[in-house]
Amino acid sequence: MQQFDAIWINANIATMTDNGMPYGTISNGVLAVKDGMIAFVGARSDLPQFDAMVTPVHDMQGQWLLPGFIDCHTHLIYGGNRANEFEMRLKGASYQQIAAEGGGIKATVAATRAASHEQLFVLAKDRLNTLLAQGVTTVEVKSGYGLDLATEQKILEVAAELDKHHPATVVKTFLGAHALPAEFADDADGYIDAVCQMLPGLHARKLVDAVDVFCEGIGFSVSQCRKVFATARALGLPVKAHAEQLSNLGGSSLVAEFGGLSADHVEFLDEAGVASMAQAGTVAVLLPGAYYFLRETQLPPVELLRKYKVPMAVATDLNPGTSPLCSLPLMLNMACTLFRLTPEEVLLGVTRHAAAALGMADRGVLASGMRADFACYSISQPAELCYQFGVNQLKQLIIKGKPIRL
Amino acid sequence: MQQFDAIWINANIATMTDNGMPYGTISNGVLAVKDGMIAFVGARSDLPQFDAMVTPVHDMQGQWLLPGFIDCHTHLIYGGNRANEFEMRLKGASYQQIAAEGGGIKATVAATRAASHEQLFVLAKDRLNTLLAQGVTTVEVKSGYGLDLATEQKILEVAAELDKHHPATVVKTFLGAHALPAEFADDADGYIDAVCQMLPGLHARKLVDAVDVFCEGIGFSVSQCRKVFATARALGLPVKAHAEQLSNLGGSSLVAEFGGLSADHVEFLDEAGVASMAQAGTVAVLLPGAYYFLRETQLPPVELLRKYKVPMAVATDLNPGTSPLCSLPLMLNMACTLFRLTPEEVLLGVTRHAAAALGMADRGVLASGMRADFACYSISQPAELCYQFGVNQLKQLIIKGKPIRL
Ligand SMILES: [Zn+2]
Ligand SMILES: [Zn+2]
Repeated sequence: MQQFDAIWINANIATMTDNGMPYGTISNGVLAVKDGMIAFVGARSDLPQFDAMVTPVHDMQGQWLLPGFIDCHTHLIYGGNRANEFEMRLKGASYQQIAAEGGGIKATVAATRAASHEQLFVLAKDRLNTLLAQGVTTVEVKSGYGLDLATEQKILEVAAELDKHHPATVVKTFLGAHALPAEFADDADGYIDAVCQMLPGLHARKLVDAVDVFCEGIGFSVSQCRKVFATARALGLPVKAHAEQLSNLGGSSLVAEFGGLSADHVEFLDEAGVASMAQAGTVAVLLPGAYYFLRETQLPPVELLRKYKVPMAVATDLNPGTSPLCSLPLMLNMACTLFRLTPEEVLLGVTRHAAAALGMADRGVLASGMRADFACYSISQPAELCYQFGVNQLKQLIIKGKPIRL
Repeated sequence: MQQFDAIWINANIATMTDNGMPYGTISNGVLAVKDGMIAFVGARSDLPQFDAMVTPVHDMQGQWLLPGFIDCHTHLIYGGNRANEFEMRLKGASYQQIAAEGGGIKATVAATRAASHEQLFVLAKDRLNTLLAQGVTTVEVKSGYGLDLATEQKILEVAAELDKHHPATVVKTFLGAHALPAEFADDADGYIDAVCQMLPGLHARKLVDAVDVFCEGIGFSVSQCRKVFATARALGLPVKAHAEQLSNLGGSSLVAEFGGLSADHVEFLDEAGVASMAQAGTVAVLLPGAYYFLRETQLPPVELLRKYKVPMAVATDLNPGTSPLCSLPLMLNMACTLFRLTPEEVLLGVTRHAAAALGMADRGVLASGMRADFACYSISQPAELCYQFGVNQLKQLIIKGKPIRL
């Protein structure tokens, strides 16, 4: 007789596996958990015998189970906010005026440098709790508002503490090459050297799960990004990039060349770039919140990504400058409405493909042997999660097999 | 010595009155409540003497008070959902295919007719609770998914019960002239006559606060809407219209001609229409959720509305077909991001101007003699409410002077 810690029955299970059904659905199925992992997913009739006297059984009454959502691209740790420049711009101020008043990313860097460890933790925890209450169980967090070693380290340490003290998993990405700090004005190459020098120490402190760069005219060139990637590779760290957001520099192909995890934004990605990503197995992370907030009109090449079977993930890009939108459910709707992804593509984008964008093989689908991170929704079909926004449909959230108080 | 039921001190108060300050702000002010009404708003030094021994004093510690938000345009009561056609369309189905499968408004009418009074109440209460938790204290609700007397009456009765049993105020609008029911196919004039015949009985049952129409090529003509408005006027009921959403038929000028409360959507409104609204004091209700969800590209004539000083309100248009977005805070962001309204215009649009769109003189601003419906936010400036979305900043909600459990 098999031992389970708990069993969920009479559930419609969107496993998000490739089982031939839309959403990998198992209708009227059973999910069983043991030691924080999924021990069984399937039809009731296939469930091994278990001790019904000691095993808690949750009757889902036809509600839906989905994998815990994964927000695979956020800048969740930052100080201050940019409401002031948001208002100035809507009142007609120019970018020059706003920059002259210390606005833009400089404002966030200054506020993040000035904030204590504890202040950043409290602010970030609020945001992480907000995501958790939406069914998000894994969140990637990037540094990049420090732009000096001390602050980059502070951000990554706060991320590590969130991972330790919060039920959600927090994945740490070093994004030193996010913007050029004032200290290195007109010396981007010098700053890139500094970034490469920060990496070994941060890695030695176990603060880096992956390395990201902003490959863009207003960010860093392909050859500068290549230097950062080479340093990452020497340390055995996976890479990814903010690429092809505002122009087609070829950052996505660079990621592919390094066998990287993901190229993110990619509105201006061309067919050659898509082909190189397909060959390398690099995920395209689509960020409809930034597209919306910046009133971008160039759509990501969704048809090409489909044609080349490049996995698409969807994330919030939560950040104070271009996506102050702390809501993954909103991104589900925006990815459908603005990018014309199907609900199934979008839900794969925050589960299986988001896990791939983080290089995580233990989550993102509901299958035996995976982490027992899943959510129960009161819906009639998975598409409802993308179609409607606002009324909370999340009824239960389970992380590592344990119910989370929402 | 004056008696107050409770006092809020050390508050930044965005009164939304015309006191010469942005947002009608009173910095470091005091708000006092008596018998569910605001008895005092102003500087601490101007507060009349009161019995400090018996009066509860809330120290706001610099947090902000704003009027309870007013969502002045919703279709909150409906059965079913349209996730299925949302998914079909994204998978490439044509409107014809969807209509052939019984989609579109017909699906919602069928589900609403089939739903019991109690079922509609439960569904609507979930949505109303969602709005309440966002700081919304007054919600307009339209009928219009019945399109027969029995169901229109059922919807308005559910709205009346929500008003009675829910802390939020629910305002009831009769929108019989929303769409042509199958029973009157090819006989729009006949259906308009039927709508006009429904009105006196519904009015006699006290189920109608205002009368709305859908003035559009796919709705009803100006002369048909005029008939409905004439019936409303004979009963002393105020009117409003869904107007100039997809084309410029002149519905807004018709509303103005009847001295109506509001013209809603108005993307295609022209200068003559704006001028007529200005003269009549008609509010323009902007609905960025429908604009977003329909991927509309025609922007409402915001500059003209400013030039003619037409008050602009902002609402969710919550409905299952074109705005399944139960979030007024999201509309604050969308009205800025998509329509380029300033945060002050947007916040006026969900307070003072939204009250005007409902013909309510007892709310929408924080001033002595107004209803004590207000909210306390942990923000550094009002623009934050428009700039960021997701993390809940609402700390306390007061309706008729009483704290609401959120
Ligand atoms: Zn980013
Ligand atoms: Zn409407």
